[in-house]
Amino acid sequence: MDIEDLFIKDKIDLLNRENHLIDDIPGQKFIVISEFTLQSGVILKDVPVAYMTWGELNEEKSNVILVCHIFSSSADVSDWWGPLLGAGRALDSSKFFIICFNVLGSPYGTASPLTVNLETGEPYGPDFPITTIRDDVYLHRKVLDLLKINTIALVVGGSLGGMHALEWAMLGSNTVRNIISISSSGRHSAWGISCGEVQRQIIYLDHRYNGGHYAKDCSPEVGLCVARMSAFLTYRSHDSFVSKFGRRSNSVCGTKSRISFELTSRDGFQSCNYSSEDGYDSDSTLDTFIIGKKDILASIGYHSGVAIGSSRKIDGSGSMVFSAQSYLRHQGEKFAKNFDANCYICISKKMDTHDIAHLRNSSHEKCLNSIEQPTMIVGIESDALFTICEQEELATHIPNASFYKIDSYDGHSGFLIEFDQLNLMIGEFIKNNLSEFTSTTN
Amino acid sequence: MDIEDLFIKDKIDLLNRENHLIDDIPGQKFIVISEFTLQSGVILKDVPVAYMTWGELNEEKSNVILVCHIFSSSADVSDWWGPLLGAGRALDSSKFFIICFNVLGSPYGTASPLTVNLETGEPYGPDFPITTIRDDVYLHRKVLDLLKINTIALVVGGSLGGMHALEWAMLGSNTVRNIISISSSGRHSAWGISCGEVQRQIIYLDHRYNGGHYAKDCSPEVGLCVARMSAFLTYRSHDSFVSKFGRRSNSVCGTKSRISFELTSRDGFQSCNYSSEDGYDSDSTLDTFIIGKKDILASIGYHSGVAIGSSRKIDGSGSMVFSAQSYLRHQGEKFAKNFDANCYICISKKMDTHDIAHLRNSSHEKCLNSIEQPTMIVGIESDALFTICEQEELATHIPNASFYKIDSYDGHSGFLIEFDQLNLMIGEFIKNNLSEFTSTTN
Repeated sequence: MDIEDLFIKDKIDLLNRENHLIDDIPGQKFIVISEFTLQSGVILKDVPVAYMTWGELNEEKSNVILVCHIFSSSADVSDWWGPLLGAGRALDSSKFFIICFNVLGSPYGTASPLTVNLETGEPYGPDFPITTIRDDVYLHRKVLDLLKINTIALVVGGSLGGMHALEWAMLGSNTVRNIISISSSGRHSAWGISCGEVQRQIIYLDHRYNGGHYAKDCSPEVGLCVARMSAFLTYRSHDSFVSKFGRRSNSVCGTKSRISFELTSRDGFQSCNYSSEDGYDSDSTLDTFIIGKKDILASIGYHSGVAIGSSRKIDGSGSMVFSAQSYLRHQGEKFAKNFDANCYICISKKMDTHDIAHLRNSSHEKCLNSIEQPTMIVGIESDALFTICEQEELATHIPNASFYKIDSYDGHSGFLIEFDQLNLMIGEFIKNNLSEFTSTTN
Repeated sequence: MDIEDLFIKDKIDLLNRENHLIDDIPGQKFIVISEFTLQSGVILKDVPVAYMTWGELNEEKSNVILVCHIFSSSADVSDWWGPLLGAGRALDSSKFFIICFNVLGSPYGTASPLTVNLETGEPYGPDFPITTIRDDVYLHRKVLDLLKINTIALVVGGSLGGMHALEWAMLGSNTVRNIISISSSGRHSAWGISCGEVQRQIIYLDHRYNGGHYAKDCSPEVGLCVARMSAFLTYRSHDSFVSKFGRRSNSVCGTKSRISFELTSRDGFQSCNYSSEDGYDSDSTLDTFIIGKKDILASIGYHSGVAIGSSRKIDGSGSMVFSAQSYLRHQGEKFAKNFDANCYICISKKMDTHDIAHLRNSSHEKCLNSIEQPTMIVGIESDALFTICEQEELATHIPNASFYKIDSYDGHSGFLIEFDQLNLMIGEFIKNNLSEFTSTTN
C-alpha cells in the first residue's frame, strides 16, 4: 500500500463516515473522482465510486465483463447473482475479469445521500442531486479509464442494471462489444414511473421522513418498509403469490415477521391486524391502544387454531394474518434495515429519467436501431413491471439482437431466482460471441 | 309519511350525525335493523341499512334485480353503472325493480365506523367490528324480508360486488334465481390480500391515523390518498398506463393535480417532485424547505419547456412530473376527499375474509359445484387483480355457468368503463334467463 492508497483510504473513511450500510460488504474497492459534472449541470466533488472485481485482467485488458446491479443491491455480485459467478459458470472468473460498480445514489459506497459532502462536513441527505442512468455510465467509464480499460467485452444487467447496459450500448461497439439486457427497457414506462411514484409518496408519508432531514437513529424505517412492500408486489406476480400462499394464515407471524420497528402509538401500527394468538407481547408499546368492547371479537374462525383475541391491552381486532401478508411484512422489514430512504428516492427518480433517446436528437426506435453490438434481450412472461412486450420491442429494434425468455411464475424477480436458466443463456451467448476466451484451447 | 317513518328518519339523522359523505347521495332510503349478530359473534345494535331502488316491484314481487356495489361506491348505481341503468338498458327499470344496498363498513349510509354508536353517543371509529361478505348478505336479506321480497330474479355485481353475488348464490335457487359475477372470486386470493395489506399499511403510516382515532377535521387524508394511488395501480394495467401516458410530462400538474391537502413540513410532502414550473406557490407551506445549492438543478431537460427550478423557496429538485404521476395523484386526492380511512380498512379486511367455503364444511370446488343457478361469469384478460384464470376457475366449477370476456386494456377497471359490452352481455343473459319479463308481449 503506497502513500496515495493510504490517502484514498482516509478520504473514503471520511466520505463514508456516516454510512454503516457498507460495513457488511467486504472486499469493496474505492476510487475517488475529484470532480464530476452531472447531466443536470451540477458538479459533484470528491465522488467515491465503490466497485468489486473477480478474476484477473488479461494483458490486453480485453476480458472485462461489466455487471450492472439492481435497485436494491451493491457491487457485490456474489450476493445477488452468486450462482452465476465463478469458474465454469456464466460469469466465469477463471476466464474473465468481472467488475461491478455501485451506482450514484445507492447506499452501498458510491456517492449518495449518505456520503459526507466535504464542503459542509455533513452527509448530503436530501440535498444529494438527481442523477441519471447516463451519469452512472459516464462516471463508471471514468473509473475504467483510470484502470486503463478501454474496451468492455460484455455489459450485462437486469432491471435497473439492464437500463445501464442499454445506456452503455449507446457508447458504441469500440467501447462495449456485447450487451445483455434482462427485464429492462430503453426508457422507463409510465407504469414504472407510476409504481415508483406510489413508493416515494409512501416514504414521504412517514412523519419521520421530514423532507429527508432525518437523523440516523430516527429514520423513516416504517415508510421504507411499506414502500418496499409495495415495490415487492410489482416484482412478483399474482400467480406466484397464489401458488405460494393460497389463503393460509401464518401462526408464527408474531415472532417471525411482524413489523418490529420500535413503534409508538403515533406510528399507527397498533392497527396492524395481528391477533393475540400471533405471539403479541402484552407489554409491547402497543398496549396504549385501548380497544372498544365491540372490537373484542371472537375470531371469525377462518382457520382452526386461531381463537379469540380477548385482552383489552392488545390488538384484539381478531382479524387474520395471512401468510402472504406476513411474508410481505417480513420482506419490507428486512429491506428497511439495510437501505436508506433518501437513497431509495434517489434511485427511484433516476429510473424515471431513463430514456436512451434523451438529448440524442433521435427517436427511441432509431436509438435502438443504432445499437450495433451483438445483444441478448431476456424477458419473463409473468413480469408485470417490465413486460415481455417491452423486451420484444427492444429485440425488434436492435439489429443484432437475439431474444430469450426465462420460464418463471415469479414475475420480474424471476431473473434473481432462475439461475440455471440464466447460466445456460448467458453462458451460451458468451460462448458464441466471445469464443476467443471460452474455446477450450484458451 | 307515518309516525314510524318519522321515527326512523330521526334515528337515521342521529346515526348519521357525523357522516357528511352521504349528503351527496340524494334519494337514498334507510331501514334500521334493531339488532344484528355478525359472523364473529359481535352484536350490532341499531344498524342503519342504506339502499336505493329504481323501477316498480310487480305484484308477485318476482322482478327484483339486486345490484351489488364496488369497494368505493354507494348504493347509487346510477353513479357508477349509470349507462347500464334505465329503460331499454341491461338493468331495465321499466321491467325490473332494481335495488342496491350499501354494505357494512362503507361510508355511504349503512352502519360503518362513521355511524354513531348509540351506546356511547360517538361514532364507532376504529372500534367498528370486522364484517364479512356473508354478514352483508344476511343483513341485506333481512331488509328484503322486511320488504316482503323472498325471491331475487338476478343478483349482479363486479369485484367486491361479485363476491357478494357469489355469496348470495350460496343461499340457493329459491332465494336467488340467477347470478352474474364480474371480475371477482369465490375466495379472495393471496394477491388480493397482499395488495390490501399494502394499502392498509399506507394508511397506518399517516401519523394522523392515530390508530383510527382521528377527528373529522384532522383525518389521514394523505395516507388515504396514497393508499388509493396504490390501489389504482391494481385496478389498471401496465398497458393502459403506457398507452395513455407514455413518458409525457404534465405542465399543468401544479394547478390540476398535485396533492393539495394542507401540508405541513412534517408531512414530508415538500419532497414531492414538483418542478417550479408546475405552478407551485412560493408562499405555500413548503417555503420552510431550504434546499442545498446542489439541489438547485438545471432541468435535466427531458422535455422542452421545462426549465430550471431556481428559487430557494420552492422545491427546486428539478425532477419532472410525468403525466402518469400527476394523474395518479389526482385520482388519490379526489378519492380521499370522498372516503374515510377507517371505512377503507373495514372494507379491505372484509374482502380478505371472503371465502364461500368458509364454515360450509366443504371444499371451494364443491361449493362452486353446488351453485345450481344459471350463472354468468365475466372476466377481463388485462385484469391483474382478479385474473382471467380465477374467472375461468369459477366458470369451470359452477355447473350452469357461461363465461364471457370484456375486451379492455384497462385491467380490472374495464367493467366500469366498457358499458356497451356490458349492456350487451347482461342484456342477453337476462333475455335468456328471465324471458318472462323481457318478451315483447310483456
